[in-house]
Amino acid sequence: MTTRPIKRTCVAGAGAIGSLFAGHLASVAESTVLTRRTEHAARLNERGLRVSGKSERQAKVLASTDPAELGDVDLVIIATKASAVEETAQSLAGHFPNALVMTVQNGLGCEAVVAEYGDWPIISAVTFMSGNRHSDVHVEYELDTATWMGPWARRPADYAQVQAAAALIEAAGLKAQPFPDLLPAQWSKLIFNAAVNSIAAVSGLPHVKAFAACDQLQDLGHVVRAMMDEGKAVAAALGIALYEDPWEMNVEATSHGSTGSEEYAHAPSMLEDVRARRPTEIDWITGAIVRAARQAGVPVPVSETLYRLVKAREASWRLEQRNH
Amino acid sequence: MTTRPIKRTCVAGAGAIGSLFAGHLASVAESTVLTRRTEHAARLNERGLRVSGKSERQAKVLASTDPAELGDVDLVIIATKASAVEETAQSLAGHFPNALVMTVQNGLGCEAVVAEYGDWPIISAVTFMSGNRHSDVHVEYELDTATWMGPWARRPADYAQVQAAAALIEAAGLKAQPFPDLLPAQWSKLIFNAAVNSIAAVSGLPHVKAFAACDQLQDLGHVVRAMMDEGKAVAAALGIALYEDPWEMNVEATSHGSTGSEEYAHAPSMLEDVRARRPTEIDWITGAIVRAARQAGVPVPVSETLYRLVKAREASWRLEQRNH
Repeated sequence: MTTRPIKRTCVAGAGAIGSLFAGHLASVAESTVLTRRTEHAARLNERGLRVSGKSERQAKVLASTDPAELGDVDLVIIATKASAVEETAQSLAGHFPNALVMTVQNGLGCEAVVAEYGDWPIISAVTFMSGNRHSDVHVEYELDTATWMGPWARRPADYAQVQAAAALIEAAGLKAQPFPDLLPAQWSKLIFNAAVNSIAAVSGLPHVKAFAACDQLQDLGHVVRAMMDEGKAVAAALGIALYEDPWEMNVEATSHGSTGSEEYAHAPSMLEDVRARRPTEIDWITGAIVRAARQAGVPVPVSETLYRLVKAREASWRLEQRNH
Repeated sequence: MTTRPIKRTCVAGAGAIGSLFAGHLASVAESTVLTRRTEHAARLNERGLRVSGKSERQAKVLASTDPAELGDVDLVIIATKASAVEETAQSLAGHFPNALVMTVQNGLGCEAVVAEYGDWPIISAVTFMSGNRHSDVHVEYELDTATWMGPWARRPADYAQVQAAAALIEAAGLKAQPFPDLLPAQWSKLIFNAAVNSIAAVSGLPHVKAFAACDQLQDLGHVVRAMMDEGKAVAAALGIALYEDPWEMNVEATSHGSTGSEEYAHAPSMLEDVRARRPTEIDWITGAIVRAARQAGVPVPVSETLYRLVKAREASWRLEQRNH
């Protein structure tokens, strides 16, 4: 497999993360965007995409709801929520035969869904950056943390291609790090996310210092720690040596800076979903750990509890809707 | 200790449960009510107390915010929330020297608080009845289930007195059952309440059939069952043989009747507290099991998790208030 230069990119799904990719990539490549809504594509074509915050950009992008209108591309980044990946992959089927496809969803399992719909070499990625989407054509770049990328084991992109894609993202002004084997990094983030997101979703607390507090019997840090210890036991049973310790990531994230202050703490995406009464990504995140634990025969009572509580929270909205 | 007839009663705290006691007792005794708000006492004196639903009553009561204005009484029922028991007991100090005092709070530990403020013999009680308080002077009698009563071990009312009080409550049209040793019944209810209330509080679900569902990996019944199994292990370690199996109580309550139907399911009091953003009784209920488990050396990871999640949910309202 030869490494060809990435000249044209397509971001599928222009939520906060997708908009950050598309808005930055436009400075180093031709940036196209596949949207779900026609009016979203129309506004992007008319106004371009503004990035504010940690970067300032006014990006020119070509947007459409139809991949056929975007021409050939070398790199597709699927940046929808996990729950929308299947629909997106379906719409990509038969298009972009020369492209690498990269998934950046929270949790596990989206690569396999994409692989069902085309022969593209696949890059697994997890991203720690965050943005606040002010409108269809304006995203604020908040946390300028890295995207980690690696060849997907079951149909890998060539590692040189992964490095080239990471270099392009870096050149565009975002942070990216390639890994020959992403699993250690992916599981670090998965375990971190499973605890922080599920606990935020049912407690209503953003990621504040309380997530690392373990002094009193009632302190929430014990729950975070127990979930992370369970996740680490599952990773160990699968033979995955973690890249970073999730508990240290948690202590670090809550101890200083914008995410640590009680007033401006970061609301994890699952808490935002709960506030908006949208279906969460629990099945791909905590659910993925719970299923892997079952297969590996590792007991994970706290993770199972949080998984079931978030599912019950989702069920409570359906019940409310039926009753009102 | 001689058994004297109960001719005059005082209910302290006229929420739903207190109003049900006062409204019924008026038909067989002189019924007085100690309220926190002057206007509440004034309205009760003027209008009386109406009971609708499972009973119909228009009760004449004597109400005041000052125990000195209520005369002597033979039986005091403290029917406030657990969090208000200390303040109530303090206001009773020095009054009603001939009375039995009965506590009916959810959870454990209120008797000891009352005992600090007077020499009254104490009746421990737990109640399963429920009411819907429509106004200061109108309560609807919903679930006509029993109140279980027994002598409090550390300063017991004479068992004949407990039987007399139970007989009076029965004669008034409510359901009551005396027990020589309440602990088996109290712990059955405590374990039931700890699971159902905490899980309802964080999931947002009333006590629906899902609480007994254990078919799928994601089903909520697994969490209920795990908490109840932990509670049963704690009771066993304390040498308490349960009166009823909490899991069977849960299956029964969700399988038919008004609490079982999805549309009209009963919202446990802790879910009502969460909806109203009031402090919950978690420290007296799930917290009591968690503390007893620590002392007994019994691991209760799921109960600890729910205890901490409800505490975190309470903290989330304080954070919101600070930020808005």
